[in-house]
Amino acid sequence: PVQTVQAFAAAAELEPYQHYMQKEIFEQPRALADTLTDVLEISPELFGDAAHRHFNDIDSVLILACGTSYYSGLVAKYWLEAIAKIPTQVEIASEYRYRESVPTTKALVVVISQSGETADTLAALRHAKSLGHVHTLTVCNVATSTMVRECALAYITRAGVEIGVASTKAFTTQLAGLYLLTLALAQNKHTQSDESIAQHLHSLRHIPAAVQAVLALEPQIISWARSFIRMDNALFLGRGAHYPIALEGALKLKEISYIHAEAYPAGELKHGPLALVTSAMPVVVVAPNDALLEKLKSNMQEVRARGGVLYVLADAHTSIENSEGIHVIRMPEHYGALSPILHVIPLQLLAYHTALGKGTDVDKPRNLAKSVTVE
Amino acid sequence: PVQTVQAFAAAAELEPYQHYMQKEIFEQPRALADTLTDVLEISPELFGDAAHRHFNDIDSVLILACGTSYYSGLVAKYWLEAIAKIPTQVEIASEYRYRESVPTTKALVVVISQSGETADTLAALRHAKSLGHVHTLTVCNVATSTMVRECALAYITRAGVEIGVASTKAFTTQLAGLYLLTLALAQNKHTQSDESIAQHLHSLRHIPAAVQAVLALEPQIISWARSFIRMDNALFLGRGAHYPIALEGALKLKEISYIHAEAYPAGELKHGPLALVTSAMPVVVVAPNDALLEKLKSNMQEVRARGGVLYVLADAHTSIENSEGIHVIRMPEHYGALSPILHVIPLQLLAYHTALGKGTDVDKPRNLAKSVTVE
Repeated sequence: PVQTVQAFAAAAELEPYQHYMQKEIFEQPRALADTLTDVLEISPELFGDAAHRHFNDIDSVLILACGTSYYSGLVAKYWLEAIAKIPTQVEIASEYRYRESVPTTKALVVVISQSGETADTLAALRHAKSLGHVHTLTVCNVATSTMVRECALAYITRAGVEIGVASTKAFTTQLAGLYLLTLALAQNKHTQSDESIAQHLHSLRHIPAAVQAVLALEPQIISWARSFIRMDNALFLGRGAHYPIALEGALKLKEISYIHAEAYPAGELKHGPLALVTSAMPVVVVAPNDALLEKLKSNMQEVRARGGVLYVLADAHTSIENSEGIHVIRMPEHYGALSPILHVIPLQLLAYHTALGKGTDVDKPRNLAKSVTVE
Repeated sequence: PVQTVQAFAAAAELEPYQHYMQKEIFEQPRALADTLTDVLEISPELFGDAAHRHFNDIDSVLILACGTSYYSGLVAKYWLEAIAKIPTQVEIASEYRYRESVPTTKALVVVISQSGETADTLAALRHAKSLGHVHTLTVCNVATSTMVRECALAYITRAGVEIGVASTKAFTTQLAGLYLLTLALAQNKHTQSDESIAQHLHSLRHIPAAVQAVLALEPQIISWARSFIRMDNALFLGRGAHYPIALEGALKLKEISYIHAEAYPAGELKHGPLALVTSAMPVVVVAPNDALLEKLKSNMQEVRARGGVLYVLADAHTSIENSEGIHVIRMPEHYGALSPILHVIPLQLLAYHTALGKGTDVDKPRNLAKSVTVE
């Protein structure tokens, strides 16, 4: 059955936080725990009574979304292909609806939206249905939304009301919902053993505690933010499932600190953006293993002379140390496939503390609306 | 048969141009004509003797490339799905080789590289073959390259030697090759009539003359460049097959003028980057129709007060006029599906003249190599 979202009476109270965004960042352990609270085991019914029938009939996934929700879809692609072994495409909703695509009606169309009212995503859903798609599922934070009403299946996240324009807890709870979907499809397609699925679910249950441990990195992030306050530009690099996390980190910095931050897949640095790197263009690297960092260091060697500086959010298992021009924050633990949910937290905090230092209106950044219900 | 590239004795001579990049931009009508010169009709054999057999066995396309070549692949996706009705995925080579994907061995793997030696693209090709892919095709500018040797099929573009690090004629000739592939697959899959395919080929043959007409816009572009010289940042917007052109326009500006230019699909502007727009962050819009421009104008209304300025590279059919904060250059003619090949030309010229005004080393931008033969 489609779950109903609880009304959190305290949702709109700010104390003791300075901004809703800060409050919402720190609420993530609770938001994730609430989102997972009714999940006793992996079964299609988590997504609705008819899920079993829909899942049996699909052979691929097509994810449609905008903005931050699009980035959660990009993470899910890595999960769906690596764990459920199901071919997955992710497309920006406004692109999909206006182009001539080849409909594959055995695809599960997944639409992702915090509000469930995002105009472009709704239009993309309706466009997909008009092309003959019948298998539709939404990951959404509002049980009463249009998106939930118009989809055959739904997973309702329980982030609670999100007030800050820059999405934080809605994003990480979407990721939790999409991980559940990955496990349900892996079960349906028999691409993971029951033991493996139980193990994945066990790891997911530990996520709220793991996020809590990451939030404790705040003092180190504040010291990075002191440098970022003086910057007008930044590059964010990631690879694999952490590339969308780099995209999300750059978007947060754009939205609230007005720093022109842009993300690239790490391997693309040398195909162009390396020309931009100077002391005024820091390079943030998300979750590199030692091998990737060695490659990046060799790419960066010639720009070190110009003062190019790396800020590395390293995996717990790496042996990377702070050195001249390389600032490292190491994550508390290695978290395998769920690592993107953890690595986005310090990037949210970096954007928040940079914006705070710049004195921008954190919760209501200029020019932006919370839910984009117009095209 | 795989074609051999002609040796152009004059390729390395600069006169009367100031830079190789400028020379190569203006050589594009010749490069495109040479690339198409032996194409008497559409047939699988344009891609090699075994093409017919390979094409009969495929049901989808997977394009792998880096940098500018990746952007030509993104354009091709729109063509392949809209014209040949064949599902197409495009992935950055360095991402594909390091992630766990679901191999679909009925896919035609297309690798794109100017030099045919790009390390990540070669590694991605070998990775695809190791996963069981046997249908491989390269669009490449060097007939004797490793990429051509290791692929079952090839289309050799005849851009001639490209010396400027920022690729120009290699990109547009890649697009011509990919359009031919689209037509050959449409023919093989019977998704277009013989008349329609003949009509598409007829349009493609006219492209060298059409590019010549677009090059005549140079004085208008120079006047835009005078404003861009003072900028440190820019946004490029496009939609559909012009979104990759916006990406390529932004990359050119990054590479040689060191302006931090970033591209977005037009519909995503309001999901974040709009917060960055001020008088110091011009917004370049590629090929909008009137309807898209109306939406963008309404998105931009609130930032007009902060001095946000649009630079619109408009389609020939639009009724857009210059007005306060909106600078328009109209293309000489409307060109349908091939329009991306034309719209990239003014963006190459914009990057060139902006770099010229800034006094950067146009042909050898800092930190970059012509062919990236290391990871």
